[in-house]
Amino acid sequence: MKQEIPYKIYLEENEMPRQWYNVRADMKKKPAPILNPATLKPITVEELSAIFCEELAKQELDDTTPYFEIPEEIRSFYRMYRPSPLTRAYCLEEKLQTPAHIYYKFEGNNTSGSHKLNSAIAQAYYAKNQGLKGVTTETGAGQWGTALSMACAYLDLDCQVYMVKCSYEQKPFRREVMRTYGAHVTPSPSINTEVGRKINAEFPGTSGSLGCAISEAVEAAVSQKGYRYVLGSVLSQVLLHQSIIGLETKAALDKYGIKADMIIGCAGGGSNLGGLISPFAGQMLRGEANYDIIAVEPASCPSLTRGVYAYDFCDTGKVCPLAKMYTLGSGFIPSANHAGGLRYHGMSSVVSELYDQGLLTARSVEQTKVFEAAQLFAKVEGILPAPESSHAIKAAIDEALKCKETGEEKNIVFGLTGTGYFDMVAYQKFNDGVMQDYIPTDEDLKTAISKLPKVD
Amino acid sequence: MKQEIPYKIYLEENEMPRQWYNVRADMKKKPAPILNPATLKPITVEELSAIFCEELAKQELDDTTPYFEIPEEIRSFYRMYRPSPLTRAYCLEEKLQTPAHIYYKFEGNNTSGSHKLNSAIAQAYYAKNQGLKGVTTETGAGQWGTALSMACAYLDLDCQVYMVKCSYEQKPFRREVMRTYGAHVTPSPSINTEVGRKINAEFPGTSGSLGCAISEAVEAAVSQKGYRYVLGSVLSQVLLHQSIIGLETKAALDKYGIKADMIIGCAGGGSNLGGLISPFAGQMLRGEANYDIIAVEPASCPSLTRGVYAYDFCDTGKVCPLAKMYTLGSGFIPSANHAGGLRYHGMSSVVSELYDQGLLTARSVEQTKVFEAAQLFAKVEGILPAPESSHAIKAAIDEALKCKETGEEKNIVFGLTGTGYFDMVAYQKFNDGVMQDYIPTDEDLKTAISKLPKVD
Repeated sequence: MKQEIPYKIYLEENEMPRQWYNVRADMKKKPAPILNPATLKPITVEELSAIFCEELAKQELDDTTPYFEIPEEIRSFYRMYRPSPLTRAYCLEEKLQTPAHIYYKFEGNNTSGSHKLNSAIAQAYYAKNQGLKGVTTETGAGQWGTALSMACAYLDLDCQVYMVKCSYEQKPFRREVMRTYGAHVTPSPSINTEVGRKINAEFPGTSGSLGCAISEAVEAAVSQKGYRYVLGSVLSQVLLHQSIIGLETKAALDKYGIKADMIIGCAGGGSNLGGLISPFAGQMLRGEANYDIIAVEPASCPSLTRGVYAYDFCDTGKVCPLAKMYTLGSGFIPSANHAGGLRYHGMSSVVSELYDQGLLTARSVEQTKVFEAAQLFAKVEGILPAPESSHAIKAAIDEALKCKETGEEKNIVFGLTGTGYFDMVAYQKFNDGVMQDYIPTDEDLKTAISKLPKVD
Repeated sequence: MKQEIPYKIYLEENEMPRQWYNVRADMKKKPAPILNPATLKPITVEELSAIFCEELAKQELDDTTPYFEIPEEIRSFYRMYRPSPLTRAYCLEEKLQTPAHIYYKFEGNNTSGSHKLNSAIAQAYYAKNQGLKGVTTETGAGQWGTALSMACAYLDLDCQVYMVKCSYEQKPFRREVMRTYGAHVTPSPSINTEVGRKINAEFPGTSGSLGCAISEAVEAAVSQKGYRYVLGSVLSQVLLHQSIIGLETKAALDKYGIKADMIIGCAGGGSNLGGLISPFAGQMLRGEANYDIIAVEPASCPSLTRGVYAYDFCDTGKVCPLAKMYTLGSGFIPSANHAGGLRYHGMSSVVSELYDQGLLTARSVEQTKVFEAAQLFAKVEGILPAPESSHAIKAAIDEALKCKETGEEKNIVFGLTGTGYFDMVAYQKFNDGVMQDYIPTDEDLKTAISKLPKVD
């Protein structure tokens, strides 16, 4: 019985998808257009190309083309760590004594330790292809910066990372991984940029913020010849690249004739969730199949479950385009004690629109429960999961336990986006029993949401 | 052309070896017997069973049985992360512009981050099977402790790790991984054991040593009912379990009709090297094939290239059995500035005997060169390698460059034993350009070697 479906379903290299899937093409009601922050009008490819590579700007605004060819150079890079395994969690099933079948798509088997690499190599490739010298970006926890550093090293492209100063100092290991791959990592706010100098002057000794780092990275991109800015989540282009996760998952399930009942993903900016669910949501949009799709977000930063669906800035610094999305307000700062990542105030406009159309449900979970699930998973399945990914684990375990009550043999599929090797400070808090939960009050949320930009 | 052999050769789960291979069975001249430290006579299974599990004591002393069945419970655990990929390093080949074909067997795709898990689960299984409550061990850098913690968590076995105090304090992340898996991690010297209390009294404020940690772990094992001591390298039982690496490598090569010309492995205590080369050395011993087998050791701890072949204690504390091996003397302490692991004074008695019979050659490399190779590898192949593993990378690159000179299309196979996520302090030194090499003088070596025990 156990032997019928292997522990790990690996696609052959020639079964790896040759195209990314753009779920927007199958949406009758499209996500609202993103707006130029200066004019509050829908942004054009030309305007967007001042910040992003031209090909990426095109991908960002294309909501009709269903498939994009994955260039051979990117496929070649993918083959170093893809296809990633779809793993049957036999040991977890046995531990839970559930009749449910649990599968997880594991994206952590690469040095960046997460799914971020899928889009990093794509964005770096288009930059290289456009003849650029390099790219700039920001990083908070460091997963995106690591992925981008690896992609740039591979393509021999300059990589400038503005790393939130407190992370730069408190997460020296992530910083050193990036440096090993040849990236230039600058603590933000820095004295390299006008905005950085201004913030340093206004708030001497500040330890920085993601919003500030984005503003510095964007300024660095537009003020240097041959550079563009790249971003690791939220954008529709990123979801497009991340669709490789869902496409491979679906191909692996189909190979063994498995029909998923539930698809579960953690949700921060939406890049992993959007990529994982895209082909399944596409089937639902085309009326071909039905799935319970569940987005799991932290109770400390509940954009889907407690946010509003409105136009908002994508960044705290308000230099990036505005998007219509579920948001807590770009001024919302999640509690610093939240260790589980996913600390983004908004949500991918694609995921937001799918959610608004009722194609997926959302739930929020508290971080101590998330770490309990992470530890259980690590003990029986071996992999030490990233706190972000563990939000999905928590929901998958909850659903599997429901199946135990009802006796249902559901096929539960979740996305295991990455590993937790660089998150041991959070695990230590958990191990020491001093991890705390934080749930914003209605008052907290009201304040941030009341400051949303006025867009008609 | 590139498509003929995939980037990653994965065996099917049903192609995973069902037996470990004991290379000693094919050796006409066997490794010298290990000796009881009290009597200096060959130790018996009964004597050894006071410290080790009985089944493991039997495996340790059995030099005639060629194959040992891998119990289904261990195979089930293996399936969570095995078969591990044999990867064709296409990108490295292209970077080096070499006609050589480079393959590496990657053992880092599990949370312990190294090959250590292959033996940890076996040792934990036999302990569980004997009805024991738990096991004790020591750990320096923490890879072995992590692997054992994972194995014990899976089998619900108590795991007590004595971690060298300076590592406990300077490597808190490794410590926290072990704690997350439920292990009890104690900084050594501790006040739990007689030997620990004695050392603490003699050397107040000492930051410990591996020798002291071994002594504490052994004392903890023999003084608690239902506990035994386990060790992650050097022992013949460990090489037996690690033969899975070589067996899978050979099966993957055979699957594609590839005949290896060179097999390269890093060498510390010899567990990875011995496991990787076992089936190939077996072929050589049986006169069926020939290979260039190369052991790569750090210039700072050159047991094969500059040691003597003699009986020595396996541990600095002199509580473990004596083995005949290439050794620098159990009193030899490699420079603390050496970041690359592999800091063991001796070498597996099996590897030592094979080396003495001329079945393999050895070379030593300096750590700055090792890190240069590691960085190059990371940039083109994506994986951030462990410093230990990078010794093999360095030699593989050197050999591939020789092929570039000669035009030979050699098939070079090396073992990539693990990842470097927890070694970023060393990478930082390298990135900052402050890493130093250390090569012991002849005088240094003479002193330690002169103190070898007298065994007739």
